[in-house]
Amino acid sequence: MSLALDPAAQDLLFREARTANTFSAEPVTEEQVRAVYDLVKYGPTAFNQSPLRVVLVRSAEARERLVPLMSEGNRPKTATAPLVAILAADNEFHEELPRLFPHYPQAKDFFTERPVRESAAALNAALQAGYFIVGVRAAGLAAGPMTGFDPAGVQKEFLDDDHTPLMIVNIGRPGENAWFPRSPRLGYEDVVTTV
Amino acid sequence: MSLALDPAAQDLLFREARTANTFSAEPVTEEQVRAVYDLVKYGPTAFNQSPLRVVLVRSAEARERLVPLMSEGNRPKTATAPLVAILAADNEFHEELPRLFPHYPQAKDFFTERPVRESAAALNAALQAGYFIVGVRAAGLAAGPMTGFDPAGVQKEFLDDDHTPLMIVNIGRPGENAWFPRSPRLGYEDVVTTV
Repeated sequence: MSLALDPAAQDLLFREARTANTFSAEPVTEEQVRAVYDLVKYGPTAFNQSPLRVVLVRSAEARERLVPLMSEGNRPKTATAPLVAILAADNEFHEELPRLFPHYPQAKDFFTERPVRESAAALNAALQAGYFIVGVRAAGLAAGPMTGFDPAGVQKEFLDDDHTPLMIVNIGRPGENAWFPRSPRLGYEDVVTTV
Repeated sequence: MSLALDPAAQDLLFREARTANTFSAEPVTEEQVRAVYDLVKYGPTAFNQSPLRVVLVRSAEARERLVPLMSEGNRPKTATAPLVAILAADNEFHEELPRLFPHYPQAKDFFTERPVRESAAALNAALQAGYFIVGVRAAGLAAGPMTGFDPAGVQKEFLDDDHTPLMIVNIGRPGENAWFPRSPRLGYEDVVTTV
């Protein structure tokens, strides 16, 4: 009873939502991806830096370039998912800060050094990847996030030197035998300590 | 109309939720934090590695050690928030993998090298930090995530060599003048490309 979020939403986003390994043939529309983005763009990042970038792999040609870059176990589902999204961190996010953080445009000056930007972009884009996965579920879709792929290959084929791939997410309605049994989670006492 | 999540939940988690800079005096209970964890623990991570660890700073003594380690602009709110949580990545998460990924206990062997573990823990714990912030909002509370602090100092005072601090989150009900005006977000076309 300690949550304000209603139980159906808890189920949709966390309790019943699962990482799908197979998908139905139903397409994921542009309208759905826009609705996900228009929700999760509000999730907070440091200085509102919003470094997450998304490449939607829609064409057959692009899918054929991506599949061989996946770990072997990830290839069949990446080949057949209705939509595949490459999530990346923009290491040049600071160029947008005067627009994104207008009450303190000097924030850009904290990020003159590339390693500082890479570190901030990695953290904040991963945070946004968490919001994105929640957003896919908010659209009633299943997400299948994967880190098993060749990052240098994906960067070369789909991104550029300023964008680092973080994860690749299969998106769609679950198909037959979509789930493994849910794995156990750590208990509260394993994770949370109080000082 | 493309989202399955009801509009009240969209507002609670993203559209009306804001990063709070002031808080009321109402305490955040142990029961609330347990409810947040018991929801967000289901968010997916690679191999279910679940590397996020949380230190709740509850005692006055611990708060006094933490505040000077914050960036100057973050000190007043960190001194007065009802609850402060240090979110950290456990770089030795692989020890739990035989329990967390029981259908493939050999997954532990992918993580024999510390740099591989640090990289995986940083990404997956940041992903879980995204779920955690959503979970705090699901409890009807405001979150104030901050990366402006002395990481080496926080690690030395509150963690150990195996735990890397990611961010510090003030938690509570919003107080007076809790919000800055909402900063603009990037448009869909700025963030999403299709190939």
